[in-house]
Amino acid sequence: MPLAITTLKKFAKQTDPLLFEFFQNQKSQTPKSLKHAHQMLENLEDFCTRGGKRLRPILVYYGYRLLNGDKSKDILKISLAMELVHTFLLIHDDIMDQSDLRRGKTAIHKLYQNGHSQRFGESMGILAGDLSSNLAFKLLLSTDFSSKQKVKVLQKLQDTIINTIFGQELDIRLETNGLSKPSEILNVYRLKTAQYTFECPLHIGAMLAGANRKHLKIISDYAIPAGIAFQIKDDILGMFGKSKHTGKPVNSDLKQGKQTLLIAKALQKASKTDREKIKAALGNKNLTNNQTAEICQIIKKTKALEFAEKLAQKYIIQSKQALKKFSKLGWDKKTIKELSNLVDYIINRNM
Amino acid sequence: MPLAITTLKKFAKQTDPLLFEFFQNQKSQTPKSLKHAHQMLENLEDFCTRGGKRLRPILVYYGYRLLNGDKSKDILKISLAMELVHTFLLIHDDIMDQSDLRRGKTAIHKLYQNGHSQRFGESMGILAGDLSSNLAFKLLLSTDFSSKQKVKVLQKLQDTIINTIFGQELDIRLETNGLSKPSEILNVYRLKTAQYTFECPLHIGAMLAGANRKHLKIISDYAIPAGIAFQIKDDILGMFGKSKHTGKPVNSDLKQGKQTLLIAKALQKASKTDREKIKAALGNKNLTNNQTAEICQIIKKTKALEFAEKLAQKYIIQSKQALKKFSKLGWDKKTIKELSNLVDYIINRNM
Repeated sequence: MPLAITTLKKFAKQTDPLLFEFFQNQKSQTPKSLKHAHQMLENLEDFCTRGGKRLRPILVYYGYRLLNGDKSKDILKISLAMELVHTFLLIHDDIMDQSDLRRGKTAIHKLYQNGHSQRFGESMGILAGDLSSNLAFKLLLSTDFSSKQKVKVLQKLQDTIINTIFGQELDIRLETNGLSKPSEILNVYRLKTAQYTFECPLHIGAMLAGANRKHLKIISDYAIPAGIAFQIKDDILGMFGKSKHTGKPVNSDLKQGKQTLLIAKALQKASKTDREKIKAALGNKNLTNNQTAEICQIIKKTKALEFAEKLAQKYIIQSKQALKKFSKLGWDKKTIKELSNLVDYIINRNM
Repeated sequence: MPLAITTLKKFAKQTDPLLFEFFQNQKSQTPKSLKHAHQMLENLEDFCTRGGKRLRPILVYYGYRLLNGDKSKDILKISLAMELVHTFLLIHDDIMDQSDLRRGKTAIHKLYQNGHSQRFGESMGILAGDLSSNLAFKLLLSTDFSSKQKVKVLQKLQDTIINTIFGQELDIRLETNGLSKPSEILNVYRLKTAQYTFECPLHIGAMLAGANRKHLKIISDYAIPAGIAFQIKDDILGMFGKSKHTGKPVNSDLKQGKQTLLIAKALQKASKTDREKIKAALGNKNLTNNQTAEICQIIKKTKALEFAEKLAQKYIIQSKQALKKFSKLGWDKKTIKELSNLVDYIINRNM
C-alpha cells in the first residue's frame, strides 16, 4: 500500500472516535421525540465514516503540525469540522448532479427517496446538507482555541466555501452550455478543488499554529498545483478508473455531461466525426458500455489523456519544488515528508 | 398604519444602505470573470430588499437596545446577518415546498429556471441559499464586537438553525403523512417560528448587550408565546388573507398539503363528509377557488378558526405579561413599548 494511503487510513482510524463522540453529544442534545432528527444525524455520521479519504482533515492537521508540532489535540476537531463542511458540499452536489452513489453507497437524497417521492428525497438531502454545514461550525466553535483564532479560521472557511459555491455554479453552467475551453475548466479546478481541498485546510491548520501571511503564501505554492493535479487525476480515474475503487460508475461523469479537462481537450483535437460522438455521449443518461469505450479511445487517440497526464505531472513537480521552501524555513520534517508522499499518491492513486 | 408597521418600515429604510454596502463589498471581492457569481449576489441583494418585514433583524436590534441603549452601530450589521440567514432558509424552503412566489415576486429557484430545466433552477437555488448562509456568517464576523461575543452569538445562531432544520424536516414529514395532531403542529411552530423568529434574534441582541442566563430566560417568556401566536396568525392569513397583502396565492398552503393548526383542528372536529373534503383538498395542485371557499367554510363551521384565534389571543396575553417583567428590571422603556406594539401587530396584521 502506498505510504500516503497507510497514513490516511491511520488518521481516519485516529479521528473516528472523535466523530462518534461529537454525534453522540449532538444526539443527546436533540429531544427524543424528534426521532427523524436522530435518524438524520445518524445518516450524517454514517456518511462521514463510509471510508472517504479524509484528505481535507489530514491537511488541516499537517498545516498545524508543520509550524507548531503537536500542541493542541483539538486540532483534530477542527479537522473533522472540515470533513463536515465537505459532507455538506457533497450532499448538495449529489442532488445537483443527480448522483445515485457516493463512496460506493447510496447518496443521501436517494437514501431518503426509498418509498417516497424524488421531491421528498431531495428536500431531505437539502436539509441534511444544511445540517452538516451548521454542525461543522458548531464543532469548530467548541474547540479550545482562542475566540480570536476561531474567528480567523471561520473567516477563511467562509471565504473558501463562497468560492467553492461559485466554482460549482460555473461547473454546472459549463455542463449546461456543453462546450468549454480547457482554460475555463482549469478555472473551476482552481476554485472547486485546489483552493478548497488543498489550500484552505492547510491554511487553517497553519493559521492555528500562528502562520503569518508570508507563510500562507508559501503553503499556497504547494497547495494550488497539488490541488489542480489532484482534480486532473480525478477526471482520469472518472474515465479510465475502476468502479470498485472509485465508488462510482465509470461513465458517470460522461452521463452527467461533466466538462472535464480530458473532454475539453479531446473536443479541441478530435476529428469532426469523433467530436460529434463525444457531444452525443455527454449528458446521455442511456450511454452504453461500448459507447463509453469508444469515447475512451477518442480521448487516447487525440492525446487528450497524454496532455492531462503531462499537465498533472507538471503541477506535481511545481508542488514538490515548493516543499523545498518549507524545509528552508525549518518546518517539521516529518510533515514535509508526508506532504511529499501525498503528492506521489495524487498521481499514482487508483481511487 | 399600525405603529409596529411604521417602525418596521423605518427600520428597513435605515438598514437598506448597510445591505447595499455589504453586497457592494462582496461583489468587489469577486473576480469580474465570474459574471454569474455577480448575478447570484445581485439576486440575493434583490431578494433581501423585496420588502420582507425584516422582523428578525429588528428583534436583534430590540434585544440589544433593551439592555444596552445604543452603543454600537454594528448591531445593525448583526441584524442584517440574521436577515441573510432567513434568506438562506426561505430560498431552500421554497425549493422543498415547490413555491413559485415569495414576497410577491418569483422565487429564486424559479427565477433561474427561466429558459432552463427545473433541475438547473433548483441547483442554482440550492447554491444561492448556501451562499446566503455563508454571507450571513461572514457579515457577522466582520463587525466590531469582540471575538468572544462573536463566538457566543454564532453558537446561539447555529443551535437555532439546527433546530429550525429539524422543524422543517418535521413539517415536511407531517405534510407527507397527511394527518397530524394539533400538538404536533404546535411542536413545529415552537421549533420553526417561535425559537427561530422571535427568541433567537432577541437573545442575540441581548447577549451582545451583556445579558445573563436569567435575562435570556425572561426574554424567552415574551418571545416564545409571541412567536407561536405569529405563526397561528400566519396560517389564518394563509387561508383567509388577501393575496395582494401576503404576497402568495391564498390557497397555496392547501395546495401544498401543509399541516396547519387550522387544518388539524378542523379534521378533528369535522363530520366524516367534511373530513373527506379536507383530505381531498390537501396537496391537490388543481384546487379550484370554489373548493378553497368550501374548505374555508368547514374551518369556520368546525370552529377551528375560532379555536386558533382564541389560542393566538391566549399566547399574546402571555407575551404581554412577560413584558411587565422587562419593566421591573428597568429595561429600556421605548423598546418595551415597541415590543408591545409588535405583539398588537402580530394579532391584527393582514400581511
